[in-house]
This record gives sequence, structure tokens and C-alpha cells, in this order.
Amino acid sequence: MATEADFRGHAGREFFTTRTVAEALAGFRPARRTGFARSTVDGYAVRAADTYGVSEGLPGYLEVAGAVRMGAEPDVTVGPGTVAVMPTGGVLPPGADAVVMVEYTQEAMPGTIEVTRPVAPGEGVVRADEDAAYGAELVPAGRPLRAQDLGMLAAAGVTEVSVHSRPRVTVFSTGDEVVPPETAELRPGQVRDATATALGALIAQAGGEPRQGGIIPDDRAALEAALRGALPGSDMIVISAGSSVGARDETAAAVARLGPPGIWCHGLAIRPGKPTLLAECAGVPVVGLPGNPRSALVVFRLIGMPLVQQAGGCTSPPTEPVVPARLARDVASAAGRLDVIQVRLEDGLAVPLFGLSALLSVLTAADGYIVVPQEATGLGSGTCVDVTLYR
Amino acid sequence: MATEADFRGHAGREFFTTRTVAEALAGFRPARRTGFARSTVDGYAVRAADTYGVSEGLPGYLEVAGAVRMGAEPDVTVGPGTVAVMPTGGVLPPGADAVVMVEYTQEAMPGTIEVTRPVAPGEGVVRADEDAAYGAELVPAGRPLRAQDLGMLAAAGVTEVSVHSRPRVTVFSTGDEVVPPETAELRPGQVRDATATALGALIAQAGGEPRQGGIIPDDRAALEAALRGALPGSDMIVISAGSSVGARDETAAAVARLGPPGIWCHGLAIRPGKPTLLAECAGVPVVGLPGNPRSALVVFRLIGMPLVQQAGGCTSPPTEPVVPARLARDVASAAGRLDVIQVRLEDGLAVPLFGLSALLSVLTAADGYIVVPQEATGLGSGTCVDVTLYR
Repeated sequence: MATEADFRGHAGREFFTTRTVAEALAGFRPARRTGFARSTVDGYAVRAADTYGVSEGLPGYLEVAGAVRMGAEPDVTVGPGTVAVMPTGGVLPPGADAVVMVEYTQEAMPGTIEVTRPVAPGEGVVRADEDAAYGAELVPAGRPLRAQDLGMLAAAGVTEVSVHSRPRVTVFSTGDEVVPPETAELRPGQVRDATATALGALIAQAGGEPRQGGIIPDDRAALEAALRGALPGSDMIVISAGSSVGARDETAAAVARLGPPGIWCHGLAIRPGKPTLLAECAGVPVVGLPGNPRSALVVFRLIGMPLVQQAGGCTSPPTEPVVPARLARDVASAAGRLDVIQVRLEDGLAVPLFGLSALLSVLTAADGYIVVPQEATGLGSGTCVDVTLYR
Repeated sequence: MATEADFRGHAGREFFTTRTVAEALAGFRPARRTGFARSTVDGYAVRAADTYGVSEGLPGYLEVAGAVRMGAEPDVTVGPGTVAVMPTGGVLPPGADAVVMVEYTQEAMPGTIEVTRPVAPGEGVVRADEDAAYGAELVPAGRPLRAQDLGMLAAAGVTEVSVHSRPRVTVFSTGDEVVPPETAELRPGQVRDATATALGALIAQAGGEPRQGGIIPDDRAALEAALRGALPGSDMIVISAGSSVGARDETAAAVARLGPPGIWCHGLAIRPGKPTLLAECAGVPVVGLPGNPRSALVVFRLIGMPLVQQAGGCTSPPTEPVVPARLARDVASAAGRLDVIQVRLEDGLAVPLFGLSALLSVLTAADGYIVVPQEATGLGSGTCVDVTLYR
């Protein structure tokens, strides 16, 4: 921005400046009516040139012409040799081009201050367009709105924004053995549905809107009917499949009949979680998870949550918290698959937690997990690993 | 749990084991009626002893006595020399103590299988109490319930838990210059309230329930009346103070009159954010934040969010995501205070973003922040720093 100093030159002599049109288009930014330059400090609005050369030994003396009130248009003008009392956030009055901090002034006599430090034009001032230039992008799309994004929008008077709707993710549980969590007494062979509740939390965490589709018996026709009924109202469908091979086969068969393009894979190179099914049916992604809750949750974190985020238009998802740690013991793995190992953190050590993949207690005891890369055949004790933390 | 093997000894000879009462109380855990051992694999329920010594070269032959159905009590008993067809998750039938995976069997003739690998007692089986022993803590208190915690509770039939209520955090904005975000046209000197909206997001992120108390003019009596009115319905009060020294003094004076023990500090060794007020009035924590939105948000993340978490009973808050990076340039700091520097991440480099503390755009452009420790006088380019990521 061309300031008064540009027109004065060093010796204070006035002259005309010639600019190119390109310079003018790029650099000439007069204040707009709705914006205003404001003070960033408590002090005095001044003409910067009036402070040039002052020092503690040789202060300058300036007359107080008035005061700026918060939230109001200044009713004072700063002429040569005068200042205006200036609160932080107040509007810079006409004539002033800088604010000198109160710390570098003192009252010489009533109505006159002495200034002990020079200021440059623009010092102590924030320009009207300094936080956001006209036409600038206030907040990028593709990520959840953060606190400061909301603040920036509020500052600009934007109290409504178009956002992606939360993807509706319908969760089905299958298995003749599965009963609702609220079942007080289990009959022999029954287990309560742990997965659907936990998936609901992960779906919400990924920005989705979980919808509980209920428990479907191990019956291909019943499952197919339930899935078909859910398709129109779902942006994604998740099935925690029955745990037996037969139940998984029934799930695959039902999904295959839902619509093109159909099953994309039926098996993932990951442990736990190998019997995972990924499909797209009539435009809706379908994820078939392993039957045991722990495997289902591990796979859904790694594969399902990113799918929910994508469905919600989140192309730059927030980073998961990761801490580096040293492995407390050797971990075996098979080349050609990812191994997800639950760990507990103890004094900078990542202590692997082992246990049957059917055990949820390994997940609830874990602080986070590590992923052994597909090409590795294991990690030695003492290896530095990245632990993704649960929250 | 004492298994059949304990009573057999190595040579298969039977003998009696004498246990102390203490051992019995601690170690004897018979299955309860509501629990059951279940299979973790698809295969055949067997008596492990029947598989001892078998190999691919010398398979064992066992008779199929029946099949276990999912979700039902087994109607088959496994006697010596016999097996039962076993789906993953099915109830282990009486007589069996292990499950041999289907991969290590083949049908020799209808009704008879050959087994090519021995199993130990307990193999392929999860005990009724293996995920959670009787009386065990399912989920620790003091942290937000994670997805797997909800799963574990659901599995145990716990569909309601007592939790801390969300702390009610009332947010006031002060300043004659501050107008609501929905104000379409600003008069000269007015700014829209960016802080209250952003604080609401941070409070919710910390587990609190934000309540907007509105904008209070720079008037001690009005502020005191508003604060006093909010005390009974608030677990915490946050004031984004006016930006001028006078407004901050008014805030402090109003807070001081609210009740004992009163103001704990009025100034924090942090930049930005020095003019922060911390008080406790009639049992309610009161946080007075600096007037400019950026300083207010920086301080609230570091000081306010932990207070909200504490008020909500969260003693083990989830870790914020942090990534290591190298500083792209020198950063100056003053010893004796924390300096919070906003950074952008570019190829593993943390690029400091500078700008007036009044600028919110520095926060919206940042990927995260670093904290220069109180004792440091700056950090050199290339220093490895921990960047706390925004989400």
C-alpha cells in the first residue's frame, strides 16, 4: 500500500510517484467502506514522520488532539504535531498512519505527551484486509471445520456454510448366535452384539451418521432383503458378518446379488481381519467385516473409517495421534500381509498385547496399535515404531 | 483353570491334586451358567488326548458324533474317539476340550475324519471368562469411552453407565466494539465476535457443553451482573475480554467481586496470551482471555481445554496428535515465557507463520503449533520440534 511516506521521500520533500498500471492493479489497495485499519496496541495514533529521530535522550513532544472510542468512528483527526489516544482494536483516525505504544510515551504536561521511540508507517496498525484480502479463500474445503476456521468465518459475518452432509452408514450384524446388548440373560451359545455399538462410535468419529440396521439371522434371503431395503437410505453399508465360514459365505452371496459392480475383494492381506469383504452395489460401498468384534474393529479403523470420510467429502482428514516408541519384545509377522499389533505404552516402550483375536479385552487394554509393514517378516525388540493412539 | 491335563499328569496316570484354600479362591473359576467356552476356529471339537501323536504321515481317525449349531446349546457330547462339527463362535460341547482346525482334517469316509496335527487342551477355544474375569474392571474411569470400550460394555450387557455430566461452560464476549457474527453491515470501529464461536468448538472438543452468554458492553456493573447471573448454571465461565487495557481492567474488577477465593493470576508467561486472567469464584473456574481472537484461542487450547476436561472428570485425556519436524528457520523467543508458534508443515519442515497476534488467518493457515520452552531464548533453524496438529 502506498503510504504518505512514499510521497514525501527521506528529506520530507514532496514529489509525485509514477506507477505502472500493473503496479496499481496489484498494489493499490485503498480501504473499503466496510473495513478499517485498527490499532494493535494501547497508545497514541500518530503521523509516523512526527516521530522520526526521537529517542529517550531527545524525545518528541506532541499534542493530544482527542481520543478514539472503542466501537465508534473516530471524531478526531490527527494533524502534524498531534496525536489521538488509541485503545487496542480502535479505528485509526484520519491523518494517522501508525500507533506508538503507551510504553514509549509519557505525559509531559496535561494535553502533551513525549515520545521516546520512533515508529514506521503502519506500525501498531492492522490493515482492513490484512486478515483476509478481498476474494481470498477463508477456509479450504475438504477437511472438518476447526475452531479457528469457525472464528474466521464468524469474523467475516459468515454464519452459514454449505457443507457435505454426514454420510448415512447403516450397520447390520449377522449371526444366529448374536443377540442385542440389552439381553439380560444369555442362553447357551448366544453372544451379545458388541460390534454394532462400537462401529457406531467409529462411524461418528469419522464424520458419519450411524444407523443401526439390527441383527439378521444367518439366512441368505433375510440378509439380502435387509440389505436391499437399506440401500436407498444409505451412503454406505457395513455388515459384521457371522463368525463361521458358512455365515461369511451367506453374506458374500447376499451382497453379490445386490447390484453391480459387486464384490471388489473377499479377503484382505491383514491380520487380524483377513475375511473382509469390500463391494460396491448400486453406487453404495458395502463393507463386510470379520465376525469377531476385535478383528472387525481393527479392519474398520484401517479401511472403513477412511471410506466414511471420503463419502463425507473429507479429502484431508485430520491426522491420527501417533507417538514413537521402542518395541519391548520381538513381534513375528508374515511377509505379504499387514500385521496390526495392539500395544500398551510403558515408559516409552511399546509392549505388544497378544491374545486370541476374539478377545475385546486386548483392545480395551491397548493404548494404541502398530502396523507391521507388508514386506516385513517381523520386528525385533528395540525397533523404533510409530504407535497410533486410540482416543 | 484346572484342566483335565492337570489331573492326568504326563504319563496319563490319574492322581489327586491338593490345593490351598487361597489357591482355590484365587484360581478355581468354574464356568458360570451364563458363560460358555466357544470355538475360535471352524473345525471339529475333540478330546485333545485323542490327537496326541498324530501327524500327516500317521493321521488319527475319529468318528463325527454330530454338529454344533450357532447360537444354540450343543445337543451332542464328544466321547473318546469322537468329534463334533464346530463353527467359529459355537459352544464347546460337553466332553470336548479343544477344537482342531478344519485345515488339519479331511473326511476319510462319510462320518469319519482323519486328523493330521495334534492339539493341546484349550487350543482353538476361548474360555467363558477369558475376555473379562468375574469382578474385573471392564473399562477404566477418567477417560472418554472409546469405540472398543463401548463394544466391551455391550458384550457384557451393560447398556447404561454412569458418566460425568458435560461441564456447562458459559462464554461471554466483552467490548463495545464487538457485534454478533450475523451482523451484515459493520459500522466503522465494529468487529464481529469471532472468539465466542471458536471457543464453543474448543469447549465441545474438550467434552464440555458450550453456552453462549452473549456480548457484554465495557461496563463493570453490566459485566458483573452478567457473570453473577451465569454462576449458578455454569461449571466454568470464559470471558473473551475487551482488547484495550481499560476493558481488561474492567473485566478483572468485575471478576474480583464475584466471590472468593477470587483471582489466581492476572498475566501468564506465554506469548501470545499474556493478559490472561485465571480465577475461581464461588467454586466456579473463571478464565479471562486476551481480547484478540488469535491470542484467546491459543491460550484456551493450552490452559482452558485441560480445565474443561478436569471439570468433566477426564483425568486421562486423549493425547493430541503430534508429529516431529525440523524448523525451517530461526525462531526468536524470550527466556521466562512460553512462545507458541504457528507452523505449516511442508515436506517434514515446520515453517513458522508470523503475523500480528490480531490475525486469525495465521491460525487458519497453520497445520499446528510448536511451543518454545520457557527456558529457551529461541530455536535455531533445523532444530527438531514436536508439532501439535490441529484437528
